[in-house]
Amino acid sequence: MNKHPHRTIPIHNKNTTLTREDIRAYFHETADVYESLFEVLTSDQAYYVKPNPLRHPLIFYYGHTNTFLINKLVLAGLISQRVNPQFESMFAVGVDEMGWDDVNEMNYSWPTPAEVKAYRASVRQVVDELIITLPFDLPITWESPWWPILMGIEHERIHLETSSVLIRQHALQYVQPHPDWAPCTLDVPAPQNSLIEIAAKDIQLAKSSDHYGWDNEYGQFNKHSPAFAAAKYLTSNAEFLSFVEAGGYQKDEYWLEEGLAWRRFAQAEHPTFWVKQADGWKLRLMTAEVDMPWSWPVEVNYHEAKAYCHWLAAQLGKPVRMPGEHEWYSLYEHAGLSDEKIADSMNANLFLDHFASSCPVNQFAHGELFDVVGNVWQWTETPIFPFDGFQVHPLYDDFTTPTFDGRHNLIKGGSWISTGNEALKSARYAFRRHFFQHAGFRYIVTDTPLEENASHYESDKLLSEYAEFHYGDSYFGVPNFCQALSEYAIEHLQSRPAAKALDLGCATGRATFELARHFDHVTGIDFSARFIGLALKLAQQGVLRYTMATEGDLISYQERQLAALGLDQVVDKVAFWQGDACNLKPQFTGYDFILAANLIDRLYSPRQFLSSIHERLNMGGVLMLTSPYTWQEEHTPREEWIGGYKKDGENVTTLDGLKAILGQHFSLMQPPVEIPFVIRETNHKFQHTLSEVTLWQRIS
Amino acid sequence: MNKHPHRTIPIHNKNTTLTREDIRAYFHETADVYESLFEVLTSDQAYYVKPNPLRHPLIFYYGHTNTFLINKLVLAGLISQRVNPQFESMFAVGVDEMGWDDVNEMNYSWPTPAEVKAYRASVRQVVDELIITLPFDLPITWESPWWPILMGIEHERIHLETSSVLIRQHALQYVQPHPDWAPCTLDVPAPQNSLIEIAAKDIQLAKSSDHYGWDNEYGQFNKHSPAFAAAKYLTSNAEFLSFVEAGGYQKDEYWLEEGLAWRRFAQAEHPTFWVKQADGWKLRLMTAEVDMPWSWPVEVNYHEAKAYCHWLAAQLGKPVRMPGEHEWYSLYEHAGLSDEKIADSMNANLFLDHFASSCPVNQFAHGELFDVVGNVWQWTETPIFPFDGFQVHPLYDDFTTPTFDGRHNLIKGGSWISTGNEALKSARYAFRRHFFQHAGFRYIVTDTPLEENASHYESDKLLSEYAEFHYGDSYFGVPNFCQALSEYAIEHLQSRPAAKALDLGCATGRATFELARHFDHVTGIDFSARFIGLALKLAQQGVLRYTMATEGDLISYQERQLAALGLDQVVDKVAFWQGDACNLKPQFTGYDFILAANLIDRLYSPRQFLSSIHERLNMGGVLMLTSPYTWQEEHTPREEWIGGYKKDGENVTTLDGLKAILGQHFSLMQPPVEIPFVIRETNHKFQHTLSEVTLWQRIS
Repeated sequence: MNKHPHRTIPIHNKNTTLTREDIRAYFHETADVYESLFEVLTSDQAYYVKPNPLRHPLIFYYGHTNTFLINKLVLAGLISQRVNPQFESMFAVGVDEMGWDDVNEMNYSWPTPAEVKAYRASVRQVVDELIITLPFDLPITWESPWWPILMGIEHERIHLETSSVLIRQHALQYVQPHPDWAPCTLDVPAPQNSLIEIAAKDIQLAKSSDHYGWDNEYGQFNKHSPAFAAAKYLTSNAEFLSFVEAGGYQKDEYWLEEGLAWRRFAQAEHPTFWVKQADGWKLRLMTAEVDMPWSWPVEVNYHEAKAYCHWLAAQLGKPVRMPGEHEWYSLYEHAGLSDEKIADSMNANLFLDHFASSCPVNQFAHGELFDVVGNVWQWTETPIFPFDGFQVHPLYDDFTTPTFDGRHNLIKGGSWISTGNEALKSARYAFRRHFFQHAGFRYIVTDTPLEENASHYESDKLLSEYAEFHYGDSYFGVPNFCQALSEYAIEHLQSRPAAKALDLGCATGRATFELARHFDHVTGIDFSARFIGLALKLAQQGVLRYTMATEGDLISYQERQLAALGLDQVVDKVAFWQGDACNLKPQFTGYDFILAANLIDRLYSPRQFLSSIHERLNMGGVLMLTSPYTWQEEHTPREEWIGGYKKDGENVTTLDGLKAILGQHFSLMQPPVEIPFVIRETNHKFQHTLSEVTLWQRIS
Repeated sequence: MNKHPHRTIPIHNKNTTLTREDIRAYFHETADVYESLFEVLTSDQAYYVKPNPLRHPLIFYYGHTNTFLINKLVLAGLISQRVNPQFESMFAVGVDEMGWDDVNEMNYSWPTPAEVKAYRASVRQVVDELIITLPFDLPITWESPWWPILMGIEHERIHLETSSVLIRQHALQYVQPHPDWAPCTLDVPAPQNSLIEIAAKDIQLAKSSDHYGWDNEYGQFNKHSPAFAAAKYLTSNAEFLSFVEAGGYQKDEYWLEEGLAWRRFAQAEHPTFWVKQADGWKLRLMTAEVDMPWSWPVEVNYHEAKAYCHWLAAQLGKPVRMPGEHEWYSLYEHAGLSDEKIADSMNANLFLDHFASSCPVNQFAHGELFDVVGNVWQWTETPIFPFDGFQVHPLYDDFTTPTFDGRHNLIKGGSWISTGNEALKSARYAFRRHFFQHAGFRYIVTDTPLEENASHYESDKLLSEYAEFHYGDSYFGVPNFCQALSEYAIEHLQSRPAAKALDLGCATGRATFELARHFDHVTGIDFSARFIGLALKLAQQGVLRYTMATEGDLISYQERQLAALGLDQVVDKVAFWQGDACNLKPQFTGYDFILAANLIDRLYSPRQFLSSIHERLNMGGVLMLTSPYTWQEEHTPREEWIGGYKKDGENVTTLDGLKAILGQHFSLMQPPVEIPFVIRETNHKFQHTLSEVTLWQRIS
């Protein structure tokens, strides 16, 4: 169906002629190439000795991709029987770099390569059978039973690449040349690099449904990319040698703090695949060590690339860095590329079309630039982040989310061994910045600073519960509490002045935003800097991400956007401050309306708050109190309780207490009402509370 | 309106001709007699020196009754201004006997008697004005604004009596004779007591709405009173002397453990108002000490009366005790008395009709018996308990409830100074058993043992929340959970055998009862003896009483009856046991149905439970699991969780885990459903949870 092998298959576009046989062929092609990769190993021993002390031995990766596929098929309910429960427990997890304890070999008693080979054959049979019998229906969507099959195939293609990196780190005695895995033998004089002007562009991304994709590729991404100048070629070994020879690995000033820590830990003095021999620099390829091909792209981690940029900037007297993700798309568009064009031609060192290694940086021109895709991956400056509308796929909820930590940078463009989904423009793989892949970089010259993208999912139990409480779903048909309060307030304020409002104890700020629909300016104040931090972030970034506990340790991922709540228009009218309701700073005064929602029974001195709050309110202004009156000594000393106790033998309710304290400066505008709210704790567990709402007009 | 003074006024009966003027007169009559009582005090000093070290001085009681009235009128919203806030704080609480710390005089700086007298005058004026202006409407009910006025009046009549007791305990120098308070001067030879046969009777009480009543008088009380023999006369001082002279106060065997503790603490050697002088026994009256009137009733506390009965039983060789409450009503009916008859005649030493003291026990005949009412109160064997349907009055929620502790015994019949409500048949005053009132006793001879009445209000937070959860109201329209589970089970069990069911983790047992509508026998088992205790009590007594937190420290009182839930018919079909679901005793087997509601995520070893529970179930029988899957390490070690974690990289839900463990012996009958439940914490705060329900049929 594809003119050339190793292209991911079109599943949804208008002219799709995809058949079940195409998927079956793609499945077997993938398994074949993966198995062929392991044929470069010289012995059973080569499967057991670790190429990298922090990773499993290759025997794990040999079995892992098939186990992953079976796991997803079980999870999706497509097969009911495991192929080999013991193997499938052993091969399930451990892909990532781990601490020493996790890879303690005592915990594993690996099977032989022959046993795993037999296992792989059994899995092939099961999946082949499934592909033949599963009802076929186009298009294939996220919900389709075919999706986990594609997921398993594309997952194996990722490991084709990562296993090749591990093999490249293996001792030479464990690897051997293989006809399928012949490296490039071409070297040319390293070309002189130069800068190409890239015009400003508005980058607009929205992954089509043409091809399989991982969760992180979906959603909306719009960003303006200002003009910049980009290196014509990927940075070559020759270029990087100048940095090495200039003492770049010894001069701390070129290194970021994190990079410095890595360099010292790793005691790195040159790129990891460079080998210094008596007769000069060699380069370690997958199955051999060769004389240094100076015209090939240097392969480094992000830290080394970043240090090079700093060094180069000093040489050029210009600001040098790697592109951000959006700038890489600028390069891609400048080069006039498209997924179709790349897949149809063989004009890139990609898809294993040419070599089992890199090649000179001046072999594949993409417009004015070279190697915009292929050859080696290109580090970007961008830690991976979720596009707006990001959702995890239910069958693989930890593909991306663990990398939303600001520590995993995106690599783009693919390498010589990138196939399938990896080779698409939309692919978004991210690795920790000290990691090695077949990856190098292209430098750019620009003054434009990089903005941080919000990638953090709030996972603190209280904060995430409040995020959902304020911005999330309704439960039991109970309307959003902050919205209900705000609407109730606005309805009863009628035509009173609406210049300034104060939301005291605003927590994560929803009522502050809601009140800004009516008031010219709303101040949100909370005692908790953490709550305020969430509100501020939402105001700045327009989006809030958090995890929610579902059951036990299991979680789901949520994203909420101000725009979707119709609140993006009021952002300029709100301000958030950390502050103490019992000891407010003087500037917080002159309000037409003050809301204190679920506040008074959490104050250490509600009496002090209530007896001075009139000072902050304009005459005729309105104070709105809401509370479930849940007095607890942990928050409020008993002698400070406004009600909920016996005094002189009689019950004193909080409403009695409020009337007594507020009576001097306020009149109660109408009888109290109760407004309910629900706080979700898990899929099954909720707090359901009634908050008593009273409105008090300042009369003196 | 009454022929004679000091009778409580009829407020509701068919021939009521009550007017606002009658109430006004009753109010002033009450205040007059109360103020007159304090005229027996000789000096201001007499108001400040404590007659009893554990009680406030009399100045407190002088002001207290008026403060109480003002407090209730404020609470009821009938007046908005206090008369004297400072006095009304000082005079509000402290009626009861207190520990030493509470009566530390440092905390009080009492006003002068003249100031209090002036305060009383002001209160009279305010209340008089209120009585004149308040809209008048008959009948006067609990909800009527006139009720708190009557409450204040009747409350003062109680203190008329209790203050007279305190005055009787005052040093003689502080009291003086007073024309209104002249004691009886009559003594006669003490009559020889004898026994009167009282026939068996069915006592049926339900207080009419004819007169004001305190909360504890309302509700239903039905009890069979078997035949017994009763002393013709109250026990006289002469009769009691035999006990004293027989060394009754020295012989521990006559005393109950609690009585012994009191006797030793008080170092009592004779009745408290007996005074041993060189020239023989004297009796302390309210304002004088007189030669012992041997024909008068002895005044003792319950412990002394009880010891006397034990001593007498030994003399007679017959079982002697005091009557229980129901037996006192037998005496009352035997005597042919009624409230009307008693109020209309002056044939009792009651209502202050005759003397300001007791009188000989053979002066007022009531049929064959004497002093069935009047002269002195009569101790009963019955600790006060709520009648079925008991409710607290919202304006005075701690009149009775603090005495439902099994330590306050009822006294019946009234004394020479009992007026108003106190003199009614329905009056139910209770005092701690070591307390002194103008109280004595009548002994009876009977074999019938006394049954304990349920008086305890469960106030433990968890137990009372569960009591309400299982037997209480619905919230948010969510149906009773146990009922819903039981109905769901019965519906899906269809025509399967219904001989034996097991409710594992039954907590307070509602589902056990509900399942017994369908099954011949249901066993309820819970790990918590406290939960089981509540279920057992309910099965035995048919009623469950508990307090509920409303706001802060404030509580309300709840009563739930099996009969009202239609469950009284199934009591014989249920049995409750304490037991461990993870280690069940062998006899719990052979069930057709097992329910484990909200259990598995609270077990220390759910795996063990689930993998062996089939052994308890008949083949084809059904296991019903319900759980919100709230796994917490505090209950279940992480390695025991059935789901809610990642295994081999994949999410394992609890349902997955259940299928894996139960699969060997069970088949899942249908897809899970979620049944909600609500647990009330306060008036405003609730837990709202969804429990996932699965039905599993045993297949092997």
